[in-house]
Amino acid sequence: MTSTPTAAPSPTAEPPHVVLVPDSFKGSLDATEVAAALREGVLAAAPDARVTSLAMADGGEGTLDALVASWQSAVHTVETVDAIGRPTTARWTVSPDGGAGVVELAEASGLPGVSDEPLQPLHAGTRGTGDVAAAVLDAGVSEVLVCLGGSASTDGGAGILSGLGARMLDADGQVVPDGGEGLARVTSIDLSGLHPRAREVRWRLAVDVTNPLLGELGAAAVFSPQKGAGPGEVAFLDEALTRWANLLERETSVRVHELPGAGAAGGVPAGLAAVLGAELEPGALLVAEAVGLPAVLADAALVLTGEGSFDSQSVRGKVADGVARLAAASPARPPVVVVAGQVLLPAEQTRAAGITAAFSIAPGPIGLDELIPRTATRLAEVAASATNLLLAGRRRG
Amino acid sequence: MTSTPTAAPSPTAEPPHVVLVPDSFKGSLDATEVAAALREGVLAAAPDARVTSLAMADGGEGTLDALVASWQSAVHTVETVDAIGRPTTARWTVSPDGGAGVVELAEASGLPGVSDEPLQPLHAGTRGTGDVAAAVLDAGVSEVLVCLGGSASTDGGAGILSGLGARMLDADGQVVPDGGEGLARVTSIDLSGLHPRAREVRWRLAVDVTNPLLGELGAAAVFSPQKGAGPGEVAFLDEALTRWANLLERETSVRVHELPGAGAAGGVPAGLAAVLGAELEPGALLVAEAVGLPAVLADAALVLTGEGSFDSQSVRGKVADGVARLAAASPARPPVVVVAGQVLLPAEQTRAAGITAAFSIAPGPIGLDELIPRTATRLAEVAASATNLLLAGRRRG
Repeated sequence: MTSTPTAAPSPTAEPPHVVLVPDSFKGSLDATEVAAALREGVLAAAPDARVTSLAMADGGEGTLDALVASWQSAVHTVETVDAIGRPTTARWTVSPDGGAGVVELAEASGLPGVSDEPLQPLHAGTRGTGDVAAAVLDAGVSEVLVCLGGSASTDGGAGILSGLGARMLDADGQVVPDGGEGLARVTSIDLSGLHPRAREVRWRLAVDVTNPLLGELGAAAVFSPQKGAGPGEVAFLDEALTRWANLLERETSVRVHELPGAGAAGGVPAGLAAVLGAELEPGALLVAEAVGLPAVLADAALVLTGEGSFDSQSVRGKVADGVARLAAASPARPPVVVVAGQVLLPAEQTRAAGITAAFSIAPGPIGLDELIPRTATRLAEVAASATNLLLAGRRRG
Repeated sequence: MTSTPTAAPSPTAEPPHVVLVPDSFKGSLDATEVAAALREGVLAAAPDARVTSLAMADGGEGTLDALVASWQSAVHTVETVDAIGRPTTARWTVSPDGGAGVVELAEASGLPGVSDEPLQPLHAGTRGTGDVAAAVLDAGVSEVLVCLGGSASTDGGAGILSGLGARMLDADGQVVPDGGEGLARVTSIDLSGLHPRAREVRWRLAVDVTNPLLGELGAAAVFSPQKGAGPGEVAFLDEALTRWANLLERETSVRVHELPGAGAAGGVPAGLAAVLGAELEPGALLVAEAVGLPAVLADAALVLTGEGSFDSQSVRGKVADGVARLAAASPARPPVVVVAGQVLLPAEQTRAAGITAAFSIAPGPIGLDELIPRTATRLAEVAASATNLLLAGRRRG
């Protein structure tokens, strides 16, 4: 028997760069814990790998936290009102370069913040979020990212505009109350008091639905019932939003009636698109850009993402979708592997979304209660297998 | 916006060669069905792939069928006796080049064949398998593969030698009866009537255990209880095997007392190693070589194997182990991916066994009853993901 006592040097000397951008596994691990488990697996398979973990979010609730974690930026607060006008404190932040301010609608105007009282679908509004946005403008940013999702209101964005200094007037020239009921009475908008910087900055709205403002798939019909609206109130709100859209078109020449995504967050994009020229963007894509994912992907050999359930929602604006889009747009075109609690999306749709492979952490037939405590271990094992397989391909390129 | 209307040619023009060598998924799909499902997934990910499927087995029961399927060889039969002396018919085959004959012990001497009567742990023997082996020698082969496993007897291989023409004699020079009880009385072996070709050919025994012949981990202590032996009979058989080993050493100068694997199939390897110079080999490795896996692996880009449960047994002589060993010995060193119903082996042991990656077909928390009908679909999906990931690595080599 002959043997070589020292290992031959690896034919591919360059250590691979592996990028970890998971979402949280709801009910099990947060995104940071998921990334730590994936990292352990990657390094078990490739001890010399360079591993970059980025906090990700889909633009909804939790996005502010993810950005603060990624940017290590200061958290500022504003004293304002919640969705039904009670005093509350809301947080915001600014990107490290000072260019972009971040407003999360759920901070001031979220449904959880008012769930201690009976829901008020006709009175809840977004004025508090407008106050936060005004504070962000005062900070001198050139761009405002507004994370939608989790709203308590159906006010077409009139509340945010009011917080920024606009006045919603009825036929008698009186300011209407906040919320959908007041919205139904607005006949003109007085923009003379609008924050001076409101129309100088770029507004980017993180949206994770494509619903229009009006009609059967609109803000009132689809989303207001979960905010407490009964059938009569749904119809009333849809009618109020229709008048609002007509008014916006008259006053700004911008037509939002058919705008995809304008139905998000009780119609907030409608008012902000028309009055402020706000752009709607897939939430995960916006966050991915904000945390610098495109630069990190430039020399990536492998991207691992994941979430509790990988299903048809995942490839419509969620984290996996944003990651896959940016990877496809990157010159390196790194493969994107989803590691999920459960994989429900058929393989064909997975590939169509630009995702290379999707693996479940389930080790075999197993109950959810049994699987949850094994999440971190199995994440590491599957990440190790995926890394190993990719590197095997590289060695044979 | 500018775009290139035609796709650029792939940088790796050569279609990948993917080799499929699964075991069966017991209770769900046989090996051929598993291979078909894997093939579908591989081709979904790489439509131009060249796919080779080979029937595999671990050297135990079912190995004859797998070899016949792979070789498309004729099945021959012998009229002989079962483990307790009743008439039976046993099958055998010869490799396409005529060089290797295959004998499966369970055909003539298996436990299932005598389970219609009370078990006879002291009387069951392997003479029938010796008759089959004699027929194989008559066919002019230069090599006999004996697949062990499933035996009803504990006779140290004396029965097979008797079937081949040897005579087991007691102190009075009388031929002893078949089985362990007779074995205890053997004091000399008369080889004058041994089949003339028995010592001219190479004997290869497919063994999937490492138990020795004697003692606490031996053939009697570990395996004879499942053949019906009570505690007294176990001790009697262990004593008989000890005398047999001593006799073999005296008559052939070959010592089998400590031979790993000699405890398989009631001690058959002991008699055959000493008298015929038989070699013991891991079953799956022997089968993999017999079906031509080494040649197929020469230009393989990826090897997919799998079984119902991937656990510590899998890497001790089962199919996955044989495949991994041959892949490691192949100049191409293709990655080996296990796709299994359940993955129980820790990642570290998986890699130590030379297996690149192991994935379960479970799509998430799921019951066995729910998973079984989805086996083929999920095999295809996981195979597609694995293929895709490997090819992504190749493109970036």
